[in-house]
Amino acid sequence: MSYTLVLLRHGNSEWNRKNLFTGWVDVRLSEQGVEEAKRAGELLAESGLLPDVLHTSVLTRAIQTANLALDVADRAWIPVRRSWRLNERHYGALQGLDKADTLEKYGPEQFQTWRRSFDTPPPPLADDSEWSQAGDPRYALLSDDELPRTEALVNVIERLLPYWQDDIIPDLADGKTVLVTAHGNSLRALVKHLDGISDEAIAELNIPTGIPLVYRLGDDFRPEGPGRYLDPEAAAAGAAAVAAQGEK
Amino acid sequence: MSYTLVLLRHGNSEWNRKNLFTGWVDVRLSEQGVEEAKRAGELLAESGLLPDVLHTSVLTRAIQTANLALDVADRAWIPVRRSWRLNERHYGALQGLDKADTLEKYGPEQFQTWRRSFDTPPPPLADDSEWSQAGDPRYALLSDDELPRTEALVNVIERLLPYWQDDIIPDLADGKTVLVTAHGNSLRALVKHLDGISDEAIAELNIPTGIPLVYRLGDDFRPEGPGRYLDPEAAAAGAAAVAAQGEK
Repeated sequence: MSYTLVLLRHGNSEWNRKNLFTGWVDVRLSEQGVEEAKRAGELLAESGLLPDVLHTSVLTRAIQTANLALDVADRAWIPVRRSWRLNERHYGALQGLDKADTLEKYGPEQFQTWRRSFDTPPPPLADDSEWSQAGDPRYALLSDDELPRTEALVNVIERLLPYWQDDIIPDLADGKTVLVTAHGNSLRALVKHLDGISDEAIAELNIPTGIPLVYRLGDDFRPEGPGRYLDPEAAAAGAAAVAAQGEK
Repeated sequence: MSYTLVLLRHGNSEWNRKNLFTGWVDVRLSEQGVEEAKRAGELLAESGLLPDVLHTSVLTRAIQTANLALDVADRAWIPVRRSWRLNERHYGALQGLDKADTLEKYGPEQFQTWRRSFDTPPPPLADDSEWSQAGDPRYALLSDDELPRTEALVNVIERLLPYWQDDIIPDLADGKTVLVTAHGNSLRALVKHLDGISDEAIAELNIPTGIPLVYRLGDDFRPEGPGRYLDPEAAAAGAAAVAAQGEK
């Protein structure tokens, strides 16, 4: 038996466009992001990869991406499940800061540590910050302890894997083609797990926006081969653009 | 304890615009319908009525309406449940026919019977019709017997009430504000049940597109008073337009 998993990073957001650290701040897709999401839907339809169920984060930019892509692919009607466990990495006190200003102020080493360290999170975000999620009703069921104020990639992996195991794998096991629309770092966390990438090597992995990444999984829900982007050329260009972020 | 239920009929569809009987045919919103859905989201946001959970049919026009309205109201992230039990009435062999042509061909009495009879359905739709839903993957879990080929309003009530009782009421009982986006006849069926409207009087009830209809329900999940449209003037004009359908 072989299972099909499709990962999709949300399209360009208003804060991607402004080059700000976003994390859990609930910004919307930019016009470019809307077009990327529709293109993702065309790629799904052209490839005949029709999702049977959707899993999204609770952040609007991932939900908009899924809604637009599935609408174009004529699959708006599939069941949807959402979880904060698929959210972007919480960027702590960096949320709302300009990436280029931050690079200039703290230097390339600190900047790269915050962006790509496996286990060093940025300083925590204060609950009275305008970019805090404390009090947001979508997280009402999380205890105060569970609500992140900052995260490194290792923290994302810890909170994401229970959802992968308990919610996504059962849908795959039912024979469903599963679409996951999420974020740069939550998808890096999942790909790290799937491909068995080391804590060091994951720093070099960049996932482009808006291009479906398809895995065939075996009986153990591990990949039978490398993930395949539906538009490999655009994916390579997109990954290079992500790697270059922070540069003015 | 008081519960809040918001009903929303999808905006104008491509086949509303063309004056065709639609039923279970999965047509999309027209440009006008897109604008109506966004306006519905503004009405929700302005009134402070923020849904905690969404129930939709599995038809694209209701899903598009919900997605657009919730996006405008900044509630794209709420949980979603979908069911064929909220679908429009299956219009049988009338699906795909022009309403004005049908009125001319069969006369006003037969036309009105098909549109508004409580228990006389139109002739069934053949499975080999281009407008049949036989084989549509979204109905794969329905047995051949369960998949409608035509329906009168009484059939809609019979298949809708189990969903109301087993899926919507539990969300209301949890204290959630529930949004139901559905169709002219599935919402008439629900309003008939809620308001205790007789089999005869329901023929005169018309629900306008794109205007949220708000009920406060008591402990028995029955209305504490009449449903309230968030834009009463537009609702009255919209209901009159629905009543006049079929006229060229």
